[in-house]
Amino acid sequence: MLVNRMLPTVSAENLTQFETLALSSSMNLADGHARQQLTAAQSKIVAELPDMWAEAAVRPVDEIEQEAAESFFGMLGQHSHPFAAGRTLSCYSSSLAMEILARSLVTTSDAVALIHPTFDNIPDILRGVGLRLVPVEEEQAHDEDLPAELLEQVGCVFITTPNNPTGRVMSEGRLRRLAEQCAEYGVVLALDTCFRGFDPDAQFDHYAVLDASGCRWVVIEDTGKLWPTLELKIGWLVRSANVDLPVEKVHSDILLGTSPLILLMVKRFADDGADGGLAELQRTIADHRALVRAELADVPDIGFVDDRARVSVERLHVGSRLGMDVWSAVRSQNLYVLPCQKFHWARPREGERMLRLALSRNSPTLLAGARVLRSALLGVPELRG
Amino acid sequence: MLVNRMLPTVSAENLTQFETLALSSSMNLADGHARQQLTAAQSKIVAELPDMWAEAAVRPVDEIEQEAAESFFGMLGQHSHPFAAGRTLSCYSSSLAMEILARSLVTTSDAVALIHPTFDNIPDILRGVGLRLVPVEEEQAHDEDLPAELLEQVGCVFITTPNNPTGRVMSEGRLRRLAEQCAEYGVVLALDTCFRGFDPDAQFDHYAVLDASGCRWVVIEDTGKLWPTLELKIGWLVRSANVDLPVEKVHSDILLGTSPLILLMVKRFADDGADGGLAELQRTIADHRALVRAELADVPDIGFVDDRARVSVERLHVGSRLGMDVWSAVRSQNLYVLPCQKFHWARPREGERMLRLALSRNSPTLLAGARVLRSALLGVPELRG
Repeated sequence: MLVNRMLPTVSAENLTQFETLALSSSMNLADGHARQQLTAAQSKIVAELPDMWAEAAVRPVDEIEQEAAESFFGMLGQHSHPFAAGRTLSCYSSSLAMEILARSLVTTSDAVALIHPTFDNIPDILRGVGLRLVPVEEEQAHDEDLPAELLEQVGCVFITTPNNPTGRVMSEGRLRRLAEQCAEYGVVLALDTCFRGFDPDAQFDHYAVLDASGCRWVVIEDTGKLWPTLELKIGWLVRSANVDLPVEKVHSDILLGTSPLILLMVKRFADDGADGGLAELQRTIADHRALVRAELADVPDIGFVDDRARVSVERLHVGSRLGMDVWSAVRSQNLYVLPCQKFHWARPREGERMLRLALSRNSPTLLAGARVLRSALLGVPELRG
Repeated sequence: MLVNRMLPTVSAENLTQFETLALSSSMNLADGHARQQLTAAQSKIVAELPDMWAEAAVRPVDEIEQEAAESFFGMLGQHSHPFAAGRTLSCYSSSLAMEILARSLVTTSDAVALIHPTFDNIPDILRGVGLRLVPVEEEQAHDEDLPAELLEQVGCVFITTPNNPTGRVMSEGRLRRLAEQCAEYGVVLALDTCFRGFDPDAQFDHYAVLDASGCRWVVIEDTGKLWPTLELKIGWLVRSANVDLPVEKVHSDILLGTSPLILLMVKRFADDGADGGLAELQRTIADHRALVRAELADVPDIGFVDDRARVSVERLHVGSRLGMDVWSAVRSQNLYVLPCQKFHWARPREGERMLRLALSRNSPTLLAGARVLRSALLGVPELRG
């Protein structure tokens, strides 16, 4: 049987549309949103939602917002956040924070240097507002200074750390050097740190490092990847005092504020996180990663390429198979994963032998998915390409 | 005492920033978000949030989303919505729906004809993505055909109905004629109907009228103005089959989906609305409008200019005073209202003798605010200008 016969018509234009296909499936390992079960402590918080509603309805929202920020940033080891200075803006989601940043950047700049690969809504949003993109290879960003000719042609360097899908974390020393370079060239350094709750290596005080360099900076943070809160989440858009971008104005064009109920909930989840919940989550993700690797251990010609990843997604190299062939084969069994071409936004072919699996699921779902994947990998012919 | 001495430094760049100043005040009559008390029936729904959470966690989200849409659009008399056809997209808010529409429009067009006045985040978002705006006076939009030379130079006509702040509703007959004109010129007709829950005159089947004309159309709907749900809301972005704009792609760049918990809550609030809750809300707003008018009845040289308005905001003409003087005077008493210049986005001076008051508040708050306003109006000198 030719594998190509199995290919359904797929009109997904981006990774999110691939994720949408999976939304109502019982084996959705596609999106990176948190879909594992609530822990006992989290269930207790959810049971108190009506009381939190009553509290949110009467208290000043700026007070609630500050408490949520203190708890969330504190849990991440990000102690120096500038909430009191009005530079920590809450958004409905990290992608909305990204849209606001993009719309702000394009008022002063026409090009952005962007890490490659990374989740494709980042390049799509940047391009969507009219910015030209220059790829910065992940290895390059982590291992060496950026070339002067790159820094001279862009208004912003954008880095995802930990990166999605690779999980690679920018170290404090490397961030310091990159920030110094950006300061030297007057370029904004923008970070997407949405997955840093999963990796203690990413839980140092980024803003202190950035401020010390004197560079103009923006950081996007996210509560949405960590906890299974049914898309109730906050994306934070944080900026330096010297950033000189109309971030606050564009933010106010799109929202007056986020929900005080969600902010109260975030505070409670973050307090629980600081009290052991985050470590428990990290252990759960490590267990899930081990579970998937064990289930696929004896499949020939595959590889887990991100050895040190601790984020809630895992890349699988499918060897000489094509990722889309495997994607189609498992889809016919109702399992959804993400093909990786579109992460490689500048050169999609580099991702064509990779799939991304979400680990933030219940163990039985993950195990069932891994078994379907195993059987498909054993069945999908290896192609020479 | 000179009034100008009282003027604080105000750096608000748009209406939302004026609203932000009011957020933590006990007398916030500034923003149009719903801040009245929950009704008994609504409180019962809130008490069931933990159960709804459990339900939302296990049911397919597309099923929940369809039920929310059926209930909400049904309550509004909008029976022909194209959810099943995938043309009713849920967003975190109506302003995000607006951003997505603007980003879609700018891919095919460089100018939009926009109703004047209207809430300033609409012109600001449209301009923010690079669109040129041509004002369409509210009277003109409601009373006569649009001129050919206008329709020839724009890619979209954008109408807010009921309008914010005037409350003026576009009738079915007038909408039909405008849609026919847009069809004739190949121009997208975009409607913002976020306030239509307040006015039965706006609760006819807009989409049927638009479809019958054959025009390309987009409508933004909102659950957020009606119910005091702490910013938990859905903005809907609805479009015609022939719209030929990348709305779905831009939507997927920014979100995978809205919260199934919020969708379940919207369904419950809308079912209650259809069961008498919406009529009760309309009576409450009418009572609040009467309360404010009565409290200010004997103040000389003022006027309530929107006689037939039923929306949850009310414009007050402050006669020969300046709106900003009154704004400053009441602000010093901790009362916040909205000065109207920025609604008149093309000619701000036309709004300088007007204030907008929010009516979707508890009666005691509204009464206290009206008394502060009354005393300020009696104290602010009339200026000749």
